Formats: sequence, structure tokens, C-alpha cells
Amino acid sequence: MLRARVIGSVWSSKRLPEIPNGAFLEVEVAPGNRLIAFDVLGTGIGELVLVSTGSVAAGWFTGQSPPIDALIIGSIDEPNTND
Amino acid sequence: MLRARVIGSVWSSKRLPEIPNGAFLEVEVAPGNRLIAFDVLGTGIGELVLVSTGSVAAGWFTGQSPPIDALIIGSIDEPNTND
Amino acid sequence: MLRARVIGSVWSSKRLPEIPNGAFLEVEVAPGNRLIAFDVLGTGIGELVLVSTGSVAAGWFTGQSPPIDALIIGSIDEPNTND
Amino acid sequence: MLRARVIGSVWSSKRLPEIPNGAFLEVEVAPGNRLIAFDVLGTGIGELVLVSTGSVAAGWFTGQSPPIDALIIGSIDEPNTND
Amino acid sequence: MLRARVIGSVWSSKRLPEIPNGAFLEVEVAPGNRLIAFDVLGTGIGELVLVSTGSVAAGWFTGQSPPIDALIIGSIDEPNTND
Repeated sequence: MLRARVIGSVWSSKRLPEIPNGAFLEVEVAPGNRLIAFDVLGTGIGELVLVSTGSVAAGWFTGQSPPIDALIIGSIDEPNTND
Repeated sequence: MLRARVIGSVWSSKRLPEIPNGAFLEVEVAPGNRLIAFDVLGTGIGELVLVSTGSVAAGWFTGQSPPIDALIIGSIDEPNTND
Repeated sequence: MLRARVIGSVWSSKRLPEIPNGAFLEVEVAPGNRLIAFDVLGTGIGELVLVSTGSVAAGWFTGQSPPIDALIIGSIDEPNTND
Repeated sequence: MLRARVIGSVWSSKRLPEIPNGAFLEVEVAPGNRLIAFDVLGTGIGELVLVSTGSVAAGWFTGQSPPIDALIIGSIDEPNTND
Repeated sequence: MLRARVIGSVWSSKRLPEIPNGAFLEVEVAPGNRLIAFDVLGTGIGELVLVSTGSVAAGWFTGQSPPIDALIIGSIDEPNTND
């Protein structure tokens, strides 16, 4: 998995109908290394996440696998710097 | 998914017969980082798109999966800079 | 496979329910080239390991494949520098 | 798909018996970025080609998939510079 | 496929039980670009080889696919520099 920070979201009105419900979030793995990951967890901007890529992302969905090649599988726990 | 800009198209007359109807579009992910993605959405030159790569691209097609490893799954909405 | 050194672990409380029992370990393949691999072998920090990536990682699990794209498949034997 | 130029071929006498008939061609994606792609189209040295990589390459073959992870799926039409 | 030179081998005593008989060989694709490939051909140190990566490596094995993501599929014939 990749450890990445969510830095934004993108919208796609014209798209393949097989794309499921969820959000396209832009994540940054390292400075200048970004990709778009699909999110079904309600992840917010700024969260640190784990991203699985490739066919295992599509395979997570039930039924016919959608053409999704990157999926946020969890948020990484971070120490609360306000404590 | 990769966020990429469509910068051209390529034609292939001599090719495997299993390649489906659609267009081969050249997209640029970052300066100098280009690939050829298959398009079934009628995407035009200059559009910003989402590209899925690997076996999930081939898996989108019905029936026998074609040897396609990159598929444009949608266009990214962009603010209309003319407004 | 990648040869990598385990350098830490991450926790994810908010995550997809399909993630199996095991640990998320951060491994370093080369300076600055890190990924998160799933571990079911009880691997410790500092161990040198073999990591398989992609769908073969998910395919190792029995039953429905989880959305895991990197798996530690073994520890690399190292000469005991204390001898 | 990758856009690449065929720059040579390689022979392998000692190899797995599951490798099908065809040629191993060396292709260059960018200066210094080369891979070996399998060819069933009779592609010649110097041709510009489309290469699919990963499991979709193996999946093109009928019957049991061979351990082939890069396949030339077509030649890119080039303007005839002699006209 | 990758063209790579075998530069060493690694041993793993603590490993997943699903790993089949064979050797883990370290191969170098380019200076500084190394990976561990599984070998069932009895390949020796110094040989130039073809390596297939990803799920096609695991798919070569009969029965349940092992968590192997890189397989030496053949040795590349080299001119005998002693002739």
C-alpha cells in the first residue's frame, strides 16, 4: 500500500456508467507524486491514508468489478498534536 | 487513477484483431511522462481525464478481455475559465 | 519481489472491514522509496524482508481476496554479525 | 499502453516450456527506459509500436496464460517521410 | 519482460509455507535497480535473464498460485566471448 495525504478532490460528470458511488480524491504520496484514489470511507482533505492500487482495488467492490485502480482502504492514525 | 491531459491520438493499422472499437489517445501525466490510453467516451484533445491502468482497464470490456492496459474512465470537470 | 527493511508500523482505526488480521508495516526498499506492506509472520522492526506486490498479495489470503496489494512473504536470512 | 520503438531482439534457448511461438523484441520507451516485449505480429526493428504490459498481455493468449507480461498489440502508423 | 543480470541469491528460512521449491535470485535491471526474482530453471550467478513480473509470475505455477510476483522465464543467449 501507499501512504499518502489527501490533498483535494476531483469531479467527473462525463464518465463511464460503471463507476460506483464514492469520491475521487487526489492524494500525494511524495512531493510531486500524486494520484487519484477512490474513496468510500468519507475521508476528508488532509487525512493520511493507505491506498491500494491495481486490480485489488477493483476487486474490493461486489458484483462486476468497476474500472477503479486505486482505493483508500483506511486512514492512518496520527498522534493528536493538540494534546 | 492517473490525472492526465489528452495531447494527441495515434493510429494503428497493423494490430491485433482483438482490439475493440475506440481511440488510442496520448495523454500526459506530467511533463515527459506520457502513455497511450484507450478511449470509448469520445474524449477530445486538451481534455483533462482520469485514466485507469492495468487489468482493470481490460476488465471493463464485456466478453473476452482485450489486451488494453489503460482506459480513460472519465473527464475531469474544470472551471470554465471563460466565465 | 522487493528486498526491503522494516522501519516502522502504522495503525488504521478507520478502515474497510475486509482487511484481515495482521500488521501494516512500513518498509524501505531504498532511501526515500517506502511502502506499507501487510504482515502475517510477526515480522519485527529492523528485519530484512521479501515483499510481493500487486494482486498476488491479495491472492494469498483464503476466501474473498482482501484489498491488500503488498505482503511480506518472508524474512531474508542475514549473517549474525555478533558471531 | 506504452509507445515504444523496437531496437533489437533477444533469443532465449534455455527457457520455460510454456513460452509460446513468437519473438522477444527489445523496445525503448524513452532514452534509457527499455523492456522486452513479446511479438506475434512480425514486427521489425525500427517500428514504432504499442505495448501492453501486465496480466492483460498474458490474457491475450488462448488456453493457459503464458508467463508473458508485455505484448506488442500494434504498430503505430507513421507519416512516410519519403513522400 | 525485464532484461536483468543475476547478481546473487537470498535465503529465507522464516517464510510463508505456500512458497514453492526454487531459488530467490537477486537480479539487476540497471545500475541501482534491483529486484528478487524466483527461479525454477537452475539459473546461475552472472547469467542474463528475462524476468516476468506481476500476477503472470504467480500464474505460471500449477494449482493454487503462490505469492510470487517475479519469475525468471528464460536465459538470454549471449555471444561466447571466448571464441
